[in-house]
Amino acid sequence: MRAARILQYRKPLVLEEIAVPDIKADEVLVKVAACGMCRSDVLLVDGFFQNYGDIPPPVIPGHEITGTIEKIGDVVLKAAGLEEGDHVVVAPGWGDGVCRHCQVGNTHICANVRWPGFGTYGGFAEYIPVPARYVIKVAKHLKFEELAPLTDAGLTPYRGIKKIRDAGGLGPDRVIGVFGIGGLGAYAVQYAKLLGGGAAVVAFARNPDKLAIAKGYGADHIIDIKGKSAGDIGKELKKATGQDKLDAIIDCAGAREMMQLGFALLAISGHYADVGFIADRIDIPLFPRVSGEQTFHGSFWGNNADLNEVMALAAAGKIQHTIKTISFDEINEYLDLQRDNKVVGRAVVKF
Amino acid sequence: MRAARILQYRKPLVLEEIAVPDIKADEVLVKVAACGMCRSDVLLVDGFFQNYGDIPPPVIPGHEITGTIEKIGDVVLKAAGLEEGDHVVVAPGWGDGVCRHCQVGNTHICANVRWPGFGTYGGFAEYIPVPARYVIKVAKHLKFEELAPLTDAGLTPYRGIKKIRDAGGLGPDRVIGVFGIGGLGAYAVQYAKLLGGGAAVVAFARNPDKLAIAKGYGADHIIDIKGKSAGDIGKELKKATGQDKLDAIIDCAGAREMMQLGFALLAISGHYADVGFIADRIDIPLFPRVSGEQTFHGSFWGNNADLNEVMALAAAGKIQHTIKTISFDEINEYLDLQRDNKVVGRAVVKF
Amino acid sequence: MRAARILQYRKPLVLEEIAVPDIKADEVLVKVAACGMCRSDVLLVDGFFQNYGDIPPPVIPGHEITGTIEKIGDVVLKAAGLEEGDHVVVAPGWGDGVCRHCQVGNTHICANVRWPGFGTYGGFAEYIPVPARYVIKVAKHLKFEELAPLTDAGLTPYRGIKKIRDAGGLGPDRVIGVFGIGGLGAYAVQYAKLLGGGAAVVAFARNPDKLAIAKGYGADHIIDIKGKSAGDIGKELKKATGQDKLDAIIDCAGAREMMQLGFALLAISGHYADVGFIADRIDIPLFPRVSGEQTFHGSFWGNNADLNEVMALAAAGKIQHTIKTISFDEINEYLDLQRDNKVVGRAVVKF
Amino acid sequence: MRAARILQYRKPLVLEEIAVPDIKADEVLVKVAACGMCRSDVLLVDGFFQNYGDIPPPVIPGHEITGTIEKIGDVVLKAAGLEEGDHVVVAPGWGDGVCRHCQVGNTHICANVRWPGFGTYGGFAEYIPVPARYVIKVAKHLKFEELAPLTDAGLTPYRGIKKIRDAGGLGPDRVIGVFGIGGLGAYAVQYAKLLGGGAAVVAFARNPDKLAIAKGYGADHIIDIKGKSAGDIGKELKKATGQDKLDAIIDCAGAREMMQLGFALLAISGHYADVGFIADRIDIPLFPRVSGEQTFHGSFWGNNADLNEVMALAAAGKIQHTIKTISFDEINEYLDLQRDNKVVGRAVVKF
Repeated sequence: MRAARILQYRKPLVLEEIAVPDIKADEVLVKVAACGMCRSDVLLVDGFFQNYGDIPPPVIPGHEITGTIEKIGDVVLKAAGLEEGDHVVVAPGWGDGVCRHCQVGNTHICANVRWPGFGTYGGFAEYIPVPARYVIKVAKHLKFEELAPLTDAGLTPYRGIKKIRDAGGLGPDRVIGVFGIGGLGAYAVQYAKLLGGGAAVVAFARNPDKLAIAKGYGADHIIDIKGKSAGDIGKELKKATGQDKLDAIIDCAGAREMMQLGFALLAISGHYADVGFIADRIDIPLFPRVSGEQTFHGSFWGNNADLNEVMALAAAGKIQHTIKTISFDEINEYLDLQRDNKVVGRAVVKF
Repeated sequence: MRAARILQYRKPLVLEEIAVPDIKADEVLVKVAACGMCRSDVLLVDGFFQNYGDIPPPVIPGHEITGTIEKIGDVVLKAAGLEEGDHVVVAPGWGDGVCRHCQVGNTHICANVRWPGFGTYGGFAEYIPVPARYVIKVAKHLKFEELAPLTDAGLTPYRGIKKIRDAGGLGPDRVIGVFGIGGLGAYAVQYAKLLGGGAAVVAFARNPDKLAIAKGYGADHIIDIKGKSAGDIGKELKKATGQDKLDAIIDCAGAREMMQLGFALLAISGHYADVGFIADRIDIPLFPRVSGEQTFHGSFWGNNADLNEVMALAAAGKIQHTIKTISFDEINEYLDLQRDNKVVGRAVVKF
Repeated sequence: MRAARILQYRKPLVLEEIAVPDIKADEVLVKVAACGMCRSDVLLVDGFFQNYGDIPPPVIPGHEITGTIEKIGDVVLKAAGLEEGDHVVVAPGWGDGVCRHCQVGNTHICANVRWPGFGTYGGFAEYIPVPARYVIKVAKHLKFEELAPLTDAGLTPYRGIKKIRDAGGLGPDRVIGVFGIGGLGAYAVQYAKLLGGGAAVVAFARNPDKLAIAKGYGADHIIDIKGKSAGDIGKELKKATGQDKLDAIIDCAGAREMMQLGFALLAISGHYADVGFIADRIDIPLFPRVSGEQTFHGSFWGNNADLNEVMALAAAGKIQHTIKTISFDEINEYLDLQRDNKVVGRAVVKF
Repeated sequence: MRAARILQYRKPLVLEEIAVPDIKADEVLVKVAACGMCRSDVLLVDGFFQNYGDIPPPVIPGHEITGTIEKIGDVVLKAAGLEEGDHVVVAPGWGDGVCRHCQVGNTHICANVRWPGFGTYGGFAEYIPVPARYVIKVAKHLKFEELAPLTDAGLTPYRGIKKIRDAGGLGPDRVIGVFGIGGLGAYAVQYAKLLGGGAAVVAFARNPDKLAIAKGYGADHIIDIKGKSAGDIGKELKKATGQDKLDAIIDCAGAREMMQLGFALLAISGHYADVGFIADRIDIPLFPRVSGEQTFHGSFWGNNADLNEVMALAAAGKIQHTIKTISFDEINEYLDLQRDNKVVGRAVVKF
């Protein structure tokens, strides 16, 4: 099969022919139809994750994976209803199955988690072996290039917003801010409308093009924060929504200054869900958190249940996308563009 | 002031001139602008509630009350921000303020609860004294005749659906059924869409006109259940939604056979919220409740917080109404029509 | 291996020598050290479950299973940390792994669920093959005969009470009633104390011996309900606790009259969790459920996470037992005693 | 009446005779029997709160108030069940009654909140007028000097731990750490046991005497952190509990280094509730919060419902105290001792 592999960190991927992998008895072989390209793929190629643990080459990147089932392992339960030819997406975050987190389905925060695209096999190749319980069957009319990014960019903010909703932070008399309108934020705006129960959705960014996308995806209001103080932004917010504070924030960036702005705008009893980690530290005043009983939720990627729900939204045609389809041979070129932040929307490798 | 009063149970209301009531130091005097007419008003006139406790005449019915503040009591806090001339709705269910339920705002289930419209003063009169904490200020552009029914018909199903959502019963991969498409059900359909987080909404009724209203208010599917078995209805449901069971049900009627149908259609882990009580008893098979881990939520009217949220939806123009405005002099006529179930939409007395 | 099998329904089990089963690649072979005997085993032998679906003989009953790992399948993850010789309990309710319920760990309500002890292999034999993800490792100092019943009798009420607690139904100013003080109820009393957050625990039964056990296990009050009206019981409750209603009920029996008593005693905003299903139907007044905003929770057995928590309690020495250890050869004798309700505490077959 | 008043900030209180205050129609007059002395009283006297808003003298400090009802306002509802001579505690945090927080009982985070002891009237005087809805009736056998601190020191950590429990952070397989074993922490240890549902409770402090108190109040383990690294403390924790991380933390101090230690020890999916604010800022690494899906809960004082629950625990004899009773004339002396951190346990002025 064709595969794009890291043979040496900080070098272009090597596109070569390698053997189709075998599967274990509890796995399925997925023939990759499309795989999204993520900022983390660039980080991986650039050796960033070597700081946290050794991932020895060869490595096949690509973790936003969708395709068809090619082969099914011997002990995969009939009851699971999987058949060759089924269209599936691959859920990220494969756990050990026995820890407390795995037992309630949060395999993605298992201490022994494995990730497709961060080891021997990944989505930048024609085939990948996947434990059967981490594939989710989807309707055949859905487009592979749209399914792929829903396993990460379109999954992560969904979980973050769900955490806020489940903690009671959303409703008709609330205002939620979406911070960071990139690949994830464009989905976040849509989910804030879908899960908000009538909450007003306000997008915040420095880039007018991104704000326009947010508006197009349903944001009730957009606020260009470039060069403005928290006070000024609060006034603009009040004009738009009737209140100068935000009851909830989904932060898709996790950048230092934006977090400080976010907390400065957070209302009494406000919820702040962060899924981004551009910054190293969170450094904010303590007292308003306590006296205003605010809650900070770290949220990471998503689990099978979240992905299932996102798939249901996709099947119902409730998610809009900005996708740039690329070919296998363009992978290195687009990793470079991604590195320079020049990709508009999500680049998706289509096989 | 003009008032329509029960002087004798099971007789027409007497429309007469009586003194404008005084207010206590912690009350406001509301000049009634509109008051909805409810099935319970007929039950009250017909002496039904005498079975549960004596309500000695004269009684002014009418509990869906909206109007303007005419006078403010001496000890009402400035901080409450109420002023003469403010438009308000009257929250139902005035508690003793000290019990466990009152302490978390559930004044409507206080054991010492008092209800406007079920005693000396009610909404079928030009003025009513209301404890200051039970009025909610609303924007002046909202129509009184649309605000009135939102304090009961448009409040009760909101709370019921919120209970299901807060228990984790709604989401993109779920189907919620709305049972009983009358005054409450027409609102329930809209709330199911708003709070469902992407859940498919299916309306069930025997009357094609009511189903058409449900469709108009956003139901994804409608099913006419007249003369059909649970099995047949399940098949129809499957054709419409892909599954033959309902993950959640909001029952606005509480009729015996419909409840039995509802539970026959309820899925594993399903939630059934009931706000209606046409039937005397609930009589259903036990085992499927246990083995399928189903939950039954009784839900009653709503509290201040719920009403505030409904008002926020109204202010944002997110609620549609079917209202028939009537005059004070038509009250008895419309009570008769209501008794015979001949009122289309909600009758609202407008002063 | 020795096995006690149903060869014909409604006949004594046949105790015979059969082949040790093979395991699949994702299974482990458990050498059974102890297996609890449950009322359901009698129902199974007596053909009761044939009403719900055919379970063709030969069948090995016994679902409260604990023992040691004898062999580990090829694809069982190293990360799962299982080794030959480990002491384990077997979690009941093996799901298909892909449905919405399995994805959050509720494998026991999967529509495709399989149960050990209700098919070819069960705990009344020396060995049983178990999917690796359904064994939970336990400390070696724990007694097998005490671990066995914790997988059902000591698991089911734990989940029921957790449902009440997680719905906000417990706390220092609440009173919880435990109904049905048999195998499950004796554990329920202990869990009500552990999870109640200071709630008063009141045990209700007709049998003074059972009430004495409840008292011994920590019930704050016991009430003998034999021949008493709901009104009288309410008065007794008030004398004991200061209130004549129960804020929560865990019903371990699900008997018709006791449920009616329970709902008659249930307070405003009360929670009723039922794990028993002696009765066919639930038949109770509707209006008080609605006006008092009561909640009914069906609860069934437990999932891996629940069992893990129960195991943590066991490891900390926080659970007391009433166990009668029996030998393999006594199985038929004790099934007869169980059928006649003559077993005191839990009978556990020890190998 | 006798009153100890701030006439000038940063001077001793002036103990003088002033007029007994009048009450408004919705208030009761409480004859103070005991009032706790808190670090905030010193901060108030020292002018600290002048940084946040002007509190013009004369001011009577003292917010941990208990006593008897002397007089009842005209519009206080009979249904509230209050009578002259009733023993009561005074709930802190009097809201405007109409905001979103007040509507669900969180009057203490109302934007228009008023606090007893931070204005004209407080607990360091013989009488104080209190809005009727902010007194909670208690049993007459309870000791006033023990009731007083339960309205703040014994209330604040209760709410913080409840937030963790309600977010699903406690249970038999969890370990909760209590940070900061002062006035609040000694109660926190007890609540962690009561609400933990079987969680192991570990107290962390630098002072062996405080650790001994924690042990006496039920902590399963105590760890002296003086001069130890996070790594060493983790090892000690593992030895004690079997795990080197904490699943939950209640932080009663909010000191900079201790928070950093706390987050270094926080497990995947861990909950950190902070009720203290010794530090100005929270400054911690971001990535582990996100990848480990940790939650930070700011928690402040408590509401009526919380206080009611604490009172239920007190009535049941489930709370232990370390109280130093002082006389009215000793107030200034003890404020000085408090300033120098020399008071052991809680100083309570008894009238």
